[in-house]
Amino acid sequence: MTGSRWPQGAAPVRRRGPALERAILDAALEQLGTVGWNALTMEGVAAGARTGKAALYRRWSSKADLVAEVLSEGLPPLGEIADHGSVREDLYRLCVRMRDVMRSPAGEALSAVLHECDPTHAYRFREVIRDGLHGPAQLLIRTLVDRGMERGDVRPDATNEMITDVIPALFMYRAKVCGSEWLDGEIAEMIDSLMVPMLRM
Amino acid sequence: MTGSRWPQGAAPVRRRGPALERAILDAALEQLGTVGWNALTMEGVAAGARTGKAALYRRWSSKADLVAEVLSEGLPPLGEIADHGSVREDLYRLCVRMRDVMRSPAGEALSAVLHECDPTHAYRFREVIRDGLHGPAQLLIRTLVDRGMERGDVRPDATNEMITDVIPALFMYRAKVCGSEWLDGEIAEMIDSLMVPMLRM
Repeated sequence: MTGSRWPQGAAPVRRRGPALERAILDAALEQLGTVGWNALTMEGVAAGARTGKAALYRRWSSKADLVAEVLSEGLPPLGEIADHGSVREDLYRLCVRMRDVMRSPAGEALSAVLHECDPTHAYRFREVIRDGLHGPAQLLIRTLVDRGMERGDVRPDATNEMITDVIPALFMYRAKVCGSEWLDGEIAEMIDSLMVPMLRM
Repeated sequence: MTGSRWPQGAAPVRRRGPALERAILDAALEQLGTVGWNALTMEGVAAGARTGKAALYRRWSSKADLVAEVLSEGLPPLGEIADHGSVREDLYRLCVRMRDVMRSPAGEALSAVLHECDPTHAYRFREVIRDGLHGPAQLLIRTLVDRGMERGDVRPDATNEMITDVIPALFMYRAKVCGSEWLDGEIAEMIDSLMVPMLRM
């Protein structure tokens, strides 16, 4: 144990299994938020979690494996969307939820990592967004559109699978191209001027 | 002049101004297509254009400057879209044109470079797509939607600026997420199941 390995007064703490894993994941997310992807090291995360590097390497064989798990398990789930009585309101709530997932600590870290990492890692971390946000969002959109058909405020032929791409595509495009943060007003505008006309009877 | 500098029998050719510049840009595009962004060198491009490195550095201070110009001047312009009698047909033609721009040698090179380069360069080369394709496409979409309003097959309140984001956003999203190549049938499906319902009276 050396001074450079753990911050002063932060001696290693004996923990096992899930508790140690949790401490490592939390330390890694914190490091991502402070030093970013390129400067993050297994040593730094171990120090932050008050453990040794070996404890990390027993679980993750590389920094990329560790970070992929931090990001995917850190993204809050979208959950269910209750029936608010109209497809307009249901889709609005879903979009607010999507925006909030990207504003969570793991979501912010994911955006930052994607801005910083090389193309090979970017491919892998984009899969985290696909599996953790866009994929689940598309399933939910399908559910909400089907609910609208039953309710009667969605046209019965709104069955094409591309319908569920529009919201994730706009989220990605406007964030990249216009730097949009998807404030509530912009979400409402998108639902009212694009989605409702596209889906209505 | 050394054997390693120019291929055998390909001695430097005396050209000036536009002719030399054209030869350099062509050689750079060819190199992008064969060796890619990371392996492209100013020496290699100079050899391909049968000139010296100094001729390149007089015009472009870095490989990134040269490549940005190759890509932006190489993308075919979208041009105008004639009136085909319906917003459906006009938008379809525009999308085919957009797809063809990305299939041009410069468009293919641009996609390949973006898959390969680091985030700082990616930012710069994405601007090439924005200025050379997405920006002009959004202006054209606005024109075609306005034409539809005058014709009477577009609702008069289809004025929200986000309407012009949908097509570029879907092109980007489905290319990235599903690896879509936007075959004609997929373009038709997108227009018929998303754009026409969104815009109709």
